[in-house]
Amino acid sequence: MTIEKTDKTTPSRYANQRAHYSEEVIYSILDEALFCTISFCVNNEPFAIPTSFVRKDDKIYIHGSVGSHFLRQLTTGTPVCITVMLADELVVAKSAFDHSVNYRSVVVFSKSEIIDDYEMKAEFFKRLTEKVVPGSWDYLRPMKKSEVDKTMLIAFDIKEASAKIRVGMPYAAESDDTNLPLWSGLIPIPQKRLTPVADQFSQDIPLPEHLK
Amino acid sequence: MTIEKTDKTTPSRYANQRAHYSEEVIYSILDEALFCTISFCVNNEPFAIPTSFVRKDDKIYIHGSVGSHFLRQLTTGTPVCITVMLADELVVAKSAFDHSVNYRSVVVFSKSEIIDDYEMKAEFFKRLTEKVVPGSWDYLRPMKKSEVDKTMLIAFDIKEASAKIRVGMPYAAESDDTNLPLWSGLIPIPQKRLTPVADQFSQDIPLPEHLK
Repeated sequence: MTIEKTDKTTPSRYANQRAHYSEEVIYSILDEALFCTISFCVNNEPFAIPTSFVRKDDKIYIHGSVGSHFLRQLTTGTPVCITVMLADELVVAKSAFDHSVNYRSVVVFSKSEIIDDYEMKAEFFKRLTEKVVPGSWDYLRPMKKSEVDKTMLIAFDIKEASAKIRVGMPYAAESDDTNLPLWSGLIPIPQKRLTPVADQFSQDIPLPEHLK
Repeated sequence: MTIEKTDKTTPSRYANQRAHYSEEVIYSILDEALFCTISFCVNNEPFAIPTSFVRKDDKIYIHGSVGSHFLRQLTTGTPVCITVMLADELVVAKSAFDHSVNYRSVVVFSKSEIIDDYEMKAEFFKRLTEKVVPGSWDYLRPMKKSEVDKTMLIAFDIKEASAKIRVGMPYAAESDDTNLPLWSGLIPIPQKRLTPVADQFSQDIPLPEHLK
């Protein structure tokens, strides 16, 4: 499925080479990224906050404490801009000018929708936990009703959205540059999961399979 | 030096434990992070874009093509919110509820200022290149005047800003949880630079010292 392109989701730079509107591409970036930035306006002044999120079907979900001043500003219908960026590689060219970054980003224009349904909140908790630490939900101490009640859930439709992706080697704006005896290429910069470190309450507890 | 706290830079959650206002702390996060997200409003609707940046003294600088529709909206005096987040560790608790993330984030409220000075633009190029690939500036094909001319530079004062930092192990909201025979601790998720990969124009060119 392809998301309909709008003026707001048409980039001015490299629109043909880098912009993507297929749900498959957009969703795969949203499902890999652990964090997004939610931006909104109050009296034409911008506010933004980085936060964790999950996608299910054509919606993005974020959560937070019912005591959060930030979340309480996102009443149902507040326009938001949600951005996600995965930085994959530094693109090292023979000139400073042609340096770039290989990235996969998504921009979503949407409106907030407060979800006050217990089952949906409980399901979100499970999805977020499984996204951040796959395989862990059934291992953990079961969720309590009071924990679900303390949490606000906000949803955003993914109806106006685009991905922007750069892949591949540097390209030299000045074609003479390719002959220069200077090294050019890529430096991968993946976000890696390293060996888990136990806390003081887990020194004698074996690392569970899903964390190995 | 400490940056003066304002209503906008006082978080509603964990303000005492996690918020920081010293320039030293804020600048160190800005200097480590390669990317920020710039948010602004047009007719009370939010727009946001992830981009690379550099800090020098008490200013953040971003650049782009003079043909960028996004950059041309940031005329001098446009209010912006700039966010940066470094995700350091996943915090794995014995309950889903107590899961968290160790992060270092910065939020800056500022206004854009177009810089049209050739020397400042040239200096920015050098600083950005050295931030992304330290030690590379003197190795590269020297910058051309036409490249500087094609580039827009925008500055933002760091006068209204705060950092928010979470460090350390999970804490159990329900103290009984600490006795559960479940593993808890941290999973480090650093962004690592891996071995550089040469492009087709660099197969016979030795990897320079600064990239080893």
